[in-house]
Amino acid sequence: MSELPKNRKVTRADVARYSGVSTAVVSYVLNNGPKPVAPLTRERVLEAVRVLGYRPNAAARALSTGSADMIGMIVVDSRNPFFAQLCHALDRATVRRDRSLLIANSDREHVAAADQIHDLAARQIGGLIIADVLTAVEQAIIESLDIPVVLINQYTGASKTPAIGVDFRAGAKSAVEHLIEHGYRDIAFVGSALAIDRRERGWSDALSEAGLPLGPRLHAPFSYAGGYEAGLALAESERRPRAVFAASDQIAVGLLAALHRAGLRVPDDIAVVSFDGTMESAYTWPPLTTVAQPIAAMADEAIRQLVTGVLTPGLTTFPTELVVRESCGCAAGVSGVGAGLVEVDSTSHLDLSL
Amino acid sequence: MSELPKNRKVTRADVARYSGVSTAVVSYVLNNGPKPVAPLTRERVLEAVRVLGYRPNAAARALSTGSADMIGMIVVDSRNPFFAQLCHALDRATVRRDRSLLIANSDREHVAAADQIHDLAARQIGGLIIADVLTAVEQAIIESLDIPVVLINQYTGASKTPAIGVDFRAGAKSAVEHLIEHGYRDIAFVGSALAIDRRERGWSDALSEAGLPLGPRLHAPFSYAGGYEAGLALAESERRPRAVFAASDQIAVGLLAALHRAGLRVPDDIAVVSFDGTMESAYTWPPLTTVAQPIAAMADEAIRQLVTGVLTPGLTTFPTELVVRESCGCAAGVSGVGAGLVEVDSTSHLDLSL
Repeated sequence: MSELPKNRKVTRADVARYSGVSTAVVSYVLNNGPKPVAPLTRERVLEAVRVLGYRPNAAARALSTGSADMIGMIVVDSRNPFFAQLCHALDRATVRRDRSLLIANSDREHVAAADQIHDLAARQIGGLIIADVLTAVEQAIIESLDIPVVLINQYTGASKTPAIGVDFRAGAKSAVEHLIEHGYRDIAFVGSALAIDRRERGWSDALSEAGLPLGPRLHAPFSYAGGYEAGLALAESERRPRAVFAASDQIAVGLLAALHRAGLRVPDDIAVVSFDGTMESAYTWPPLTTVAQPIAAMADEAIRQLVTGVLTPGLTTFPTELVVRESCGCAAGVSGVGAGLVEVDSTSHLDLSL
Repeated sequence: MSELPKNRKVTRADVARYSGVSTAVVSYVLNNGPKPVAPLTRERVLEAVRVLGYRPNAAARALSTGSADMIGMIVVDSRNPFFAQLCHALDRATVRRDRSLLIANSDREHVAAADQIHDLAARQIGGLIIADVLTAVEQAIIESLDIPVVLINQYTGASKTPAIGVDFRAGAKSAVEHLIEHGYRDIAFVGSALAIDRRERGWSDALSEAGLPLGPRLHAPFSYAGGYEAGLALAESERRPRAVFAASDQIAVGLLAALHRAGLRVPDDIAVVSFDGTMESAYTWPPLTTVAQPIAAMADEAIRQLVTGVLTPGLTTFPTELVVRESCGCAAGVSGVGAGLVEVDSTSHLDLSL
């Protein structure tokens, strides 16, 4: 049997012909049913799949190796639940537009990020998304590329490069205003020391406008451990605040663990509101009231710009939404676990045999 | 000024010459210090970086476009904390061997995974890691590739393809034995219904060997919501167990939220032990006793096989380790938050202004 010409797509009929079976039998093998197939026949079909390089998705676009159908992404730390969900949303948005996403970690080492920008660009990708704060050098590098670049999770739109982010200052302010509405007067901040991160500013805006003094301010890394250490410090402090605004859900999870450890009740002794609206914020105890970022909408916008080539220079800002659960002091009935999930994960298939 | 020949690496001296400054000034711009640089000079240097395509990492390997220096990875769902940490560990292991990792999500749609295997292979990668359970078709596809493939987080080593995983059955058994040592007699299982996932078998092994009856068995998806629903079902059940073995940390987080919601105390009313040993397991309340997978060691082994080309066909099994915290009923002093972390995240830079 002669080989197929390289530029023709291998079909199910080719697999059937090569293996000497009907196309129906090929389907049974590929779909594991509905009818059984004898082991040796099955092996012959799979051998044909291997030899011919058959791809079973008939609706799939023709493979255009080295074309612009892949989008690259560079992300600081995909273990962080916020970034993990952002990557996932970008992946979904990319697939919806018939592209696929390739993710590389930069891990906050800026020299490595510069390497990765070059490496990814050399992979003949159709566009690049970067979820990291760029140095001037990296900024210069991406401006020298001949592919479109969109920055995401950004604080500022300092350069011509399209950037997408939320209004961190307004979001943080809404969280602290909610705590003030609860009647709390002494409200702490736990979050980044970076001046361009406007969440601390949103916290101080809300307190100043309400005529309240600034509560304790703790600069902690965006990690569980950072939140945990801050929580222990607050719990042991002579000036223990009545409420805390935590700049991320991950910090809040660590904070809650430390407050529990110190024997404090949340929200009765100390109330907590956080930022991000990741899935896990609905499953802490108590469930976190949090400022949700519109992760799916931002991901869609980033991919839309890359795929259409209609780029919006500077910063495009998305509004946040306060998801009210119980850590702030609101009643359980109002919302509860699962309320306001930006993206609810599958709950099907629970199969009980009690 | 003439362009540089394409095959010579651009140096800092080239950038200095192009922009008419000293190499020291180039360094100040690239490193943001230690000395200040006038804005216009800075702009000129960055322009030179752009035009010449300078990459600041002098120690970086020469860029070999399209060579085997990139390893591809296909993962089911990188939002799942276990897979997120596995990807991160693989990334670290890859960087240590002077390669980089490109991650694609398969999202449990097997046809899409087949597409992605082809897509990644077409990117001239040096090897492929797959963290998913493969269908026969996918197995046939990867056997037709001319690059090495290693499967990770695997239950079986059915094919010739190298596979890496833990002993799920022995790990689950050790968790349930620990619960039995606490004196609990009625121990439930919450986890996968998949027969190849041997965690349920490990649970029943431990109970049978101790002469105990099998407790309630709940088949739930690997998600927060799956654990939450299972927790509510257990809490409301007439036959409420004294302890639960949850097949993943993510399930356990959802389970804890449901038990708290139902007003039950963990471990006093119901004890919990889980599986995976992800970072978040140390920051739940109470902190989870969990069967830790040696994520870093498995990642190292996968990358070692791919990079050296010395592949080990069939399943390579790694042992698990029980990390004892408090959800099982052990005392806080024994371990506490942060104990037995497979990989501790950075806690530096906590900066308090109380």
